[in-house]
Amino acid sequence: MEKNLLVAQSGGPTAVINASLLGVIQEAWKQKTVHQIYGSMHGIDGLFNDQIINLKKINPSDLEKLYYTPSAALGSVRRCLPQDLSHPLYHQLLQQFQKYQIHYFLYIGGNDSMDTVLKLNQFFKKVNYPCLVLGIPKTIDNDLVITDHAPGYGSAIKYIANTIQEIHFDISCYQRGRVNIVEIMGRDSGWLTAGSKLACLNQAGPDLIYLPEVAFDEKSFLKKVQQLYQKQQQVLICVSEGIKDKTGKYVMEQSAYFEDNDVFGHLQLGGVAKVLSHLVKKELNLPVRAIELNLCQRCASHFLSKTDVTEAYQAGVQAVQLILNGHTGEMIAFKRVNQQPYQITYACIPIEQIANQVSYIPSSWIQDDCDLNEKFIHYALPLIQGEITLPYHNGLIDFYSIKK
Amino acid sequence: MEKNLLVAQSGGPTAVINASLLGVIQEAWKQKTVHQIYGSMHGIDGLFNDQIINLKKINPSDLEKLYYTPSAALGSVRRCLPQDLSHPLYHQLLQQFQKYQIHYFLYIGGNDSMDTVLKLNQFFKKVNYPCLVLGIPKTIDNDLVITDHAPGYGSAIKYIANTIQEIHFDISCYQRGRVNIVEIMGRDSGWLTAGSKLACLNQAGPDLIYLPEVAFDEKSFLKKVQQLYQKQQQVLICVSEGIKDKTGKYVMEQSAYFEDNDVFGHLQLGGVAKVLSHLVKKELNLPVRAIELNLCQRCASHFLSKTDVTEAYQAGVQAVQLILNGHTGEMIAFKRVNQQPYQITYACIPIEQIANQVSYIPSSWIQDDCDLNEKFIHYALPLIQGEITLPYHNGLIDFYSIKK
Repeated sequence: MEKNLLVAQSGGPTAVINASLLGVIQEAWKQKTVHQIYGSMHGIDGLFNDQIINLKKINPSDLEKLYYTPSAALGSVRRCLPQDLSHPLYHQLLQQFQKYQIHYFLYIGGNDSMDTVLKLNQFFKKVNYPCLVLGIPKTIDNDLVITDHAPGYGSAIKYIANTIQEIHFDISCYQRGRVNIVEIMGRDSGWLTAGSKLACLNQAGPDLIYLPEVAFDEKSFLKKVQQLYQKQQQVLICVSEGIKDKTGKYVMEQSAYFEDNDVFGHLQLGGVAKVLSHLVKKELNLPVRAIELNLCQRCASHFLSKTDVTEAYQAGVQAVQLILNGHTGEMIAFKRVNQQPYQITYACIPIEQIANQVSYIPSSWIQDDCDLNEKFIHYALPLIQGEITLPYHNGLIDFYSIKK
Repeated sequence: MEKNLLVAQSGGPTAVINASLLGVIQEAWKQKTVHQIYGSMHGIDGLFNDQIINLKKINPSDLEKLYYTPSAALGSVRRCLPQDLSHPLYHQLLQQFQKYQIHYFLYIGGNDSMDTVLKLNQFFKKVNYPCLVLGIPKTIDNDLVITDHAPGYGSAIKYIANTIQEIHFDISCYQRGRVNIVEIMGRDSGWLTAGSKLACLNQAGPDLIYLPEVAFDEKSFLKKVQQLYQKQQQVLICVSEGIKDKTGKYVMEQSAYFEDNDVFGHLQLGGVAKVLSHLVKKELNLPVRAIELNLCQRCASHFLSKTDVTEAYQAGVQAVQLILNGHTGEMIAFKRVNQQPYQITYACIPIEQIANQVSYIPSSWIQDDCDLNEKFIHYALPLIQGEITLPYHNGLIDFYSIKK
């Protein structure tokens, strides 16, 4: 019987999710026990829609460009499988796994995607279908538990730290500047926003860093902004989109500065940097600017960390080797075994311990409620090391897009 | 008598304004007729505040980092000199020029700064003070007339085209996506926004491009967005911050979607992408996202165009040579003398022909009111060619900051 491998991608894109995909394909190609290597388009939706492509048919030199191409080359999806394993959807999935003779399924994704790995693995065991299921981590948010960090995070904070440095240079050129509030992704945890701290190593970091891990206090914020502006005539603030007040309410949901927010849809479209800008303008009457880093955080291949992309690729390679060795219902995790020189090993963690959990920045790494200390730098700095030289053609980076 | 040279920077920062500064310093250093090389901090404000530094005292290896360091290393300013040349401010300036024995003054800046060059030159002639004054162009906006283009523009559109390409990859990964509206700088002319067109060379460009040169029609916009979304399930739109309706009113000033805009300060803080997002949401009820590229457009050294930075440096070199040859009241301009291979020469243009003018995209380069044609690509593509390998330390670009 032919044993085929299926790989798919899920959740928000990153700059290195395709490096993991490439690792899977190139390693699976070497393995004689794997007959065909299929890709499911748009995560498990490709199974429902029968959008399954044969990855062995792609020109190898095109394929190699996946190493540095951002976003999910197979397409992505946000779908949550039903809790009830007897739901008809599982039967549909089973038919597709049988049709394509899939015995190995690798799912590259974040927290929600690991929930899919968990449920599929439980289902296959329940119906006694011989398909192994393994998760490959992917998230710029770095909010997966147990693993030291997740692929995608290093490149995202390399983008953030370097961009903050460039913004710092830009705003420093006027004698009388503004309060600049930079909004960074992160609903529940502040890992990405914390990355801005690394720019401080070049004296070009933010003055204040606000994380979801610390309850946001408006009065203290305004006092600090005013004092800093008086002293420096400019302030640089980095803030997680998900900061909350002490009642647990998102600051971006605050309506004090947005009457009629339902009518005008501010909540959906505006962000926390805008809310804080209004606050600074109204309460302190200082010149202020809101900057939202937005999508660039998760697709900025031009700031790839070599460490990150190498680990993402290796996570794909390791996943193939481990699934062929019988591992199932687990996720590939990184364990930091040495700090100097930085070194990690790859481990398999039962998916029950990972799915639907959130990792937060330890409180001992946060100081003065709006800053990170040496412990964070010690943790994060190795993750942004090393650069990748990208091939340009005509001044544009030469990315690769899988024909669908 | 000692003859000293003074250089200063003015207006909004760019990624290559410091390359021009380096060109000035390194060329002036070679010239025996130049005794000291001074820098005025924050443009001509440094003269009023006596913040004049001796640039020969900077370590040459530190100085070389200016080649790729963004923002204005000497600091910048936005100041308009009085129309009346008998205003006491001119007398103050004269005293400072005399104090430091300045006989050559080079001002690196954009449109407004060329107005300063014009007035100072007129003033020195009027009072018969032997100081020559020359302008070195600098603007990401590319809105200086006569010169083929301005230093800073090439790197800015290289950032824009590559970032649009990355965003295109990011948003393409979902089967059902959003309407994405990217706001790009440019109040009067659409040169920067037009740069997004270059991403189309990799089939990763915007679907629609809206420029200030074309009156914005709301109905036509909504119809196009709806049709594109129905067909593609996602739309990528690039829009200049300065688009206006047919009455000449800025779209970002439209209050139809922002009642109480004065109270909540939307005009100052919000942008046109937000206004159009509200419009799409309200009229078409489609999922929509506003992205503002913001400051990164003018400080993204990581997307330096080698062509641009080389020309910016050369503009500084040429300016020194020309001012020593007696040129005054002029600006260095680029003349494109060959297209393939692309080649420019440097010329001197009387400042009266340049100051306070605005260059627009020719209407023959615009098609269908929301797209650019081959003529623009032909013009812009040479300007983004070539890459600069930046030195990284610890994962961060190693920039240089002049101690003030």
